[in-house]
Amino acid sequence: MLATTPKPPYYAVIFASTRTEGDNGYSAMADRMMELAKNQPGFLGVDTARSEIGITVSYWQDLKSIELWRQHSEHQAAKEKGKTNWYKNYRLRIAKVEQEY
Amino acid sequence: MLATTPKPPYYAVIFASTRTEGDNGYSAMADRMMELAKNQPGFLGVDTARSEIGITVSYWQDLKSIELWRQHSEHQAAKEKGKTNWYKNYRLRIAKVEQEY
Repeated sequence: MLATTPKPPYYAVIFASTRTEGDNGYSAMADRMMELAKNQPGFLGVDTARSEIGITVSYWQDLKSIELWRQHSEHQAAKEKGKTNWYKNYRLRIAKVEQEY
Repeated sequence: MLATTPKPPYYAVIFASTRTEGDNGYSAMADRMMELAKNQPGFLGVDTARSEIGITVSYWQDLKSIELWRQHSEHQAAKEKGKTNWYKNYRLRIAKVEQEY
């Protein structure tokens, strides 16, 4: 159930968020984004959990694959909707994974 | 509610886990570790969420502050108990945060 990734180095995109009330199409979008991301070049895996806040960490081969995913049109549309409809607050961090145990 | 961190670079420790059944003292330990971590030198913040899996991302000034926390005796005891009692599976990643939005 946990993402299995290759030997570092590779990259992690850490997305932490607080949600607005109600689903408002959020779950369907999240499932769709997961499906799309998995087919992106350089995608290595993803871990996601939500309780008071949500954390999704996706793993990528390099910065170029993160940039390609960032530019994906359907992903961009979802992000716009996220900013206005789904998220109260969020932070996105891009980090280079150096060690894994 | 989301961790607020300084301008990158800094470090993230990404801990993803699946739990065994029942609490078995886990919540009390988790609260205590959070309290201890917050008082460690170089600690910058933490985000945590749990649903099917748990993800805790703690943020640190540098690798040295992570190493000091790793060596903390009470933290080491908790890790040992975690391996035998609380976690079915876990992965720990140390990553250098390069960008934040």
